[in-house]
Amino acid sequence: MNKAITYELLHECKQTGARRGVIHTPHGDIQTPIFMPVGTQATVKSLTPEELKEEVKAQIILSNTYHLYLRPGHKLVEEAGGLHNFMKWDKPILTDSGGFQVFSLGELRKITEEGVEFKSHLDGSKHLFTPEKVMEIENSLGADIIMAFDECCPYPSTYEYTKNSMERTTRWAIRCKETHKNIEKQGLFGIIQGGFYKDLRKQSAEDLIALDLPGYAIGGISVGEPKETFLDILQYTTPLMPKEKPRYLMGVGTPDYLIEAAIAGIDMCDCVLPTRIARNGTALTSKGKVVVKNATYERDWNPLDDECDCYACKNYTRAYIRHLVKANEILGVRLLSLHNLRFLTNLMERVRIEIENDNLLNFRNEFYQKYGYID
Amino acid sequence: MNKAITYELLHECKQTGARRGVIHTPHGDIQTPIFMPVGTQATVKSLTPEELKEEVKAQIILSNTYHLYLRPGHKLVEEAGGLHNFMKWDKPILTDSGGFQVFSLGELRKITEEGVEFKSHLDGSKHLFTPEKVMEIENSLGADIIMAFDECCPYPSTYEYTKNSMERTTRWAIRCKETHKNIEKQGLFGIIQGGFYKDLRKQSAEDLIALDLPGYAIGGISVGEPKETFLDILQYTTPLMPKEKPRYLMGVGTPDYLIEAAIAGIDMCDCVLPTRIARNGTALTSKGKVVVKNATYERDWNPLDDECDCYACKNYTRAYIRHLVKANEILGVRLLSLHNLRFLTNLMERVRIEIENDNLLNFRNEFYQKYGYID
Repeated sequence: MNKAITYELLHECKQTGARRGVIHTPHGDIQTPIFMPVGTQATVKSLTPEELKEEVKAQIILSNTYHLYLRPGHKLVEEAGGLHNFMKWDKPILTDSGGFQVFSLGELRKITEEGVEFKSHLDGSKHLFTPEKVMEIENSLGADIIMAFDECCPYPSTYEYTKNSMERTTRWAIRCKETHKNIEKQGLFGIIQGGFYKDLRKQSAEDLIALDLPGYAIGGISVGEPKETFLDILQYTTPLMPKEKPRYLMGVGTPDYLIEAAIAGIDMCDCVLPTRIARNGTALTSKGKVVVKNATYERDWNPLDDECDCYACKNYTRAYIRHLVKANEILGVRLLSLHNLRFLTNLMERVRIEIENDNLLNFRNEFYQKYGYID
Repeated sequence: MNKAITYELLHECKQTGARRGVIHTPHGDIQTPIFMPVGTQATVKSLTPEELKEEVKAQIILSNTYHLYLRPGHKLVEEAGGLHNFMKWDKPILTDSGGFQVFSLGELRKITEEGVEFKSHLDGSKHLFTPEKVMEIENSLGADIIMAFDECCPYPSTYEYTKNSMERTTRWAIRCKETHKNIEKQGLFGIIQGGFYKDLRKQSAEDLIALDLPGYAIGGISVGEPKETFLDILQYTTPLMPKEKPRYLMGVGTPDYLIEAAIAGIDMCDCVLPTRIARNGTALTSKGKVVVKNATYERDWNPLDDECDCYACKNYTRAYIRHLVKANEILGVRLLSLHNLRFLTNLMERVRIEIENDNLLNFRNEFYQKYGYID
């Protein structure tokens, strides 16, 4: 039987643990390490698929099981011919399982061995997500990579809570694997949990690896902990993951975290940050964040980032983009979203080159110096 | 001295009073009759200049003196190299004088012979617009066509109020002409007022024509009056306007009004309608309006309009666009704005062809039958 998702290792950086690779999917290849733009509701906020391909140069995007289940409904998306056809994106898609969202957005959630009962953030209606239900939804959506249903522990959580939660997540992953119908077209990834306890991370990794899933993710970090704690768990957990499969760090999108993730040996990251801060009038640039809506940019005739090759930077001044943001004009959000996403995909293109050149550590140091601050 | 704006009559429809012509401007030619998209705040809402050129096929856009004066300020736009450079639109621009806006948006306005004192809708600050001030602003903005400062009477208004207001508008037009500095690069258009009194319309037209301005507009109709009243004044006033100059009907953008305007001999129209109804989830189509956010389109796998050649109609279903609108996603507004504008420019392309074929009356009847209703 053909596997939906396979990983090919091209080169390991001699300065770091970073991997240069390719993920093969039914909708094409993904050069890694990569940053994946998030399209929660079957659209990467404010942008078209063509802009994502031609300007952002995105190779894969994310979408969300929780949101699409509630609206417009996974059966409707299935009728449309799946998510790729519904939103006219013909490259790879990854769907998150909704595990994180039912905990962060759903009200009055109730967790049992069976699954999670929660109330919709849209209308308060009651719903039950079980591993079986989530697989049904993700099979309907038809993404290339689908995530197992997991519990993302709050930070901080006690050892006992975290252990129980992690073990349940593993049992849920087994149920996901048993239910997943579409293994030739969709690869099911397991999510390593275990909070900030290394022995639990190790147990989670081992138990999930035993399921021989086509890829693995680290969940439950970058959830509010100090950076040292994040790095400690990242650097401990990543080497536990199979070398011959993709390694995905969930919910990370600041430039420094992306670089550190690559150095640790991570292949894939995602985050809503670039589009979210765009809506607040903020740009990521090679010299740090620029809050373009601030008065200081009123008569700034420079582009957002003079090192950037995106449409926004090639055509518009900070002064014009500031005007658009202040006047609540959609074009302002569009230009900032496009730029911020391109900034991160550009960064990862560079990271891939520096891995090939065995120079990632030097690049990190230069980048940090110029970027001027670390989140 | 070169004139900024000239009009060339190509053909007169034998079935109607419609004119097929070309307006020559410093930023290129405009094929008429034409619908002009509105970019109030130096952006046509949600769209890029490239989309306007390549998808909407817009030949000229409008922007607004009142809004740009208040934010970001006309001096800032002048520093940016003028409006064309500020917003990266290299085709013709027309700026409205703010006459309509100080009456409809400004609070606590006070009209004197000198001008209009008003409070900003943004921060309540006090401002005085005089013909001289408006010319200063429009000269700074640098549009190809600039409108004289006028008073747009409320509907209904008494004969006496309308007469006084119209005569003042003429005196203001004289002051505009005397102040306008940039006549080789910017053509000043007069605005015929006179409400719904034909003798006042006649007087206004004659007095303004005596100023030998490069173009004329009809203001103060399509302001809430019944359609018969609109048509009566339109059909009475248009033939009073010079044949050798562009004729502009302000604030009209429903398909039937556009067709009637062309039939009456109008060359240019503008309206915020297509982008405004887009933001409410409504599409203009060849079979009438489609309120795509309605539940009836939930599983409609057809394009917005199967006769349309725009990007939205070539790529997306009503079901997907409905999902975007319901989920408050910007891409929904973008696709509907693009489509609605293209619908109107497409309509006017067709009107131009039908004028050339001396067939506009037949086309009107066919269009109305298919469109299914008249606004």
